[in-house]
Amino acid sequence: MPEALRLYHASASPNSRRVRMFLAEKELVLTLVPVDLGKGEQRWDAYRRINPRQMVPTLVLEDGAAIGEVPAIWRYLEETYPAKLLLGATAREKALVSMWERRVELEGFAPVMEGVRNAAPGLKGRAIAGPHDYEQIPALVDRSRLRVANFLSDLDIRLADAPFVAGDQFSVADITALATIDFAAKAFATSIPEEQRALSRWREAVSARPSASA
Amino acid sequence: MPEALRLYHASASPNSRRVRMFLAEKELVLTLVPVDLGKGEQRWDAYRRINPRQMVPTLVLEDGAAIGEVPAIWRYLEETYPAKLLLGATAREKALVSMWERRVELEGFAPVMEGVRNAAPGLKGRAIAGPHDYEQIPALVDRSRLRVANFLSDLDIRLADAPFVAGDQFSVADITALATIDFAAKAFATSIPEEQRALSRWREAVSARPSASA
Repeated sequence: MPEALRLYHASASPNSRRVRMFLAEKELVLTLVPVDLGKGEQRWDAYRRINPRQMVPTLVLEDGAAIGEVPAIWRYLEETYPAKLLLGATAREKALVSMWERRVELEGFAPVMEGVRNAAPGLKGRAIAGPHDYEQIPALVDRSRLRVANFLSDLDIRLADAPFVAGDQFSVADITALATIDFAAKAFATSIPEEQRALSRWREAVSARPSASA
Repeated sequence: MPEALRLYHASASPNSRRVRMFLAEKELVLTLVPVDLGKGEQRWDAYRRINPRQMVPTLVLEDGAAIGEVPAIWRYLEETYPAKLLLGATAREKALVSMWERRVELEGFAPVMEGVRNAAPGLKGRAIAGPHDYEQIPALVDRSRLRVANFLSDLDIRLADAPFVAGDQFSVADITALATIDFAAKAFATSIPEEQRALSRWREAVSARPSASA
């Protein structure tokens, strides 16, 4: 019963959204437990016992095992509920989806997060999520904007060749890409340059899926 | 036939070592194709056609499909050659291995790489691997040393609870952790503090495996 699984998440967290979109695509309903990031609840003892990295989301299984990290949560859910595969069907597809999703995360999602964390006044001394405190480095803010621009341009080239990020099928690579672009729009007011037609076409298509509102 | 698979790698590349250790643990023999990073061969056209991120390693399948990114290469190999599982057996184990391996990569491996790339005189203007040029940021060098110290301390606490990083079994989480610690020792002359006994015990045990010399 999926309801026996608890997902600790936050509505404004882009990493939580990556899991909520996955659940929506699979039409899976778990027990959602909100974590109030505004109050810093992710750093309170109760949550730290579940996730020592102090990040959302975390999936807690029936036996109490706590799975942190978005790709690990996806992996558990895909193995347990294989209807409508989002991580690929064959060994080759699984590897290609994993590759594309990771490229999007490292080149797009992570730079957006880095830009936000190194700029936000409320995150002074907390430039990296997790149990340790690190000072903001202002030079990372400009670099992250440049990286995001390069990411959009590379993704446009990719999407001129394939309907979805990892190829012919919608996958987690599309989920991470949409979470990245929507978060960049909100955090940096980044918009897709007009000449990036393949990327615009793709964004329109994936934004029209019911999972986009998750 | 595993020999029909080609692995493009470089002997001094820690990411290549993560795949070579995996192969050694599974006793798989692929066709190894060296890429000369000293000459910048990863940026030449021939290699860029295989891997537009211009990084090693890349696994090329019989049909020519090119799989970049270490976790994606592992995934292909684990699915295709399941004898001696290194990514976990059950859904729960797969998720926990994925979580622990990723924590080690994000908190240990990536900071070591960041420290090296932002310090090395030969990498001026190339602070991030890949197709785009980024200037070095000196503040990242000190921050990465601090992050690596925190990583070792956190890993020691974990290894006081479990014989291997992800639990009772050797897994890819141990491979990434050993690649991180050995690379930090070489690049930063980092050594494990004497009081971190669980970490020292683990390092001795995993370094004694034949795969450690891969």
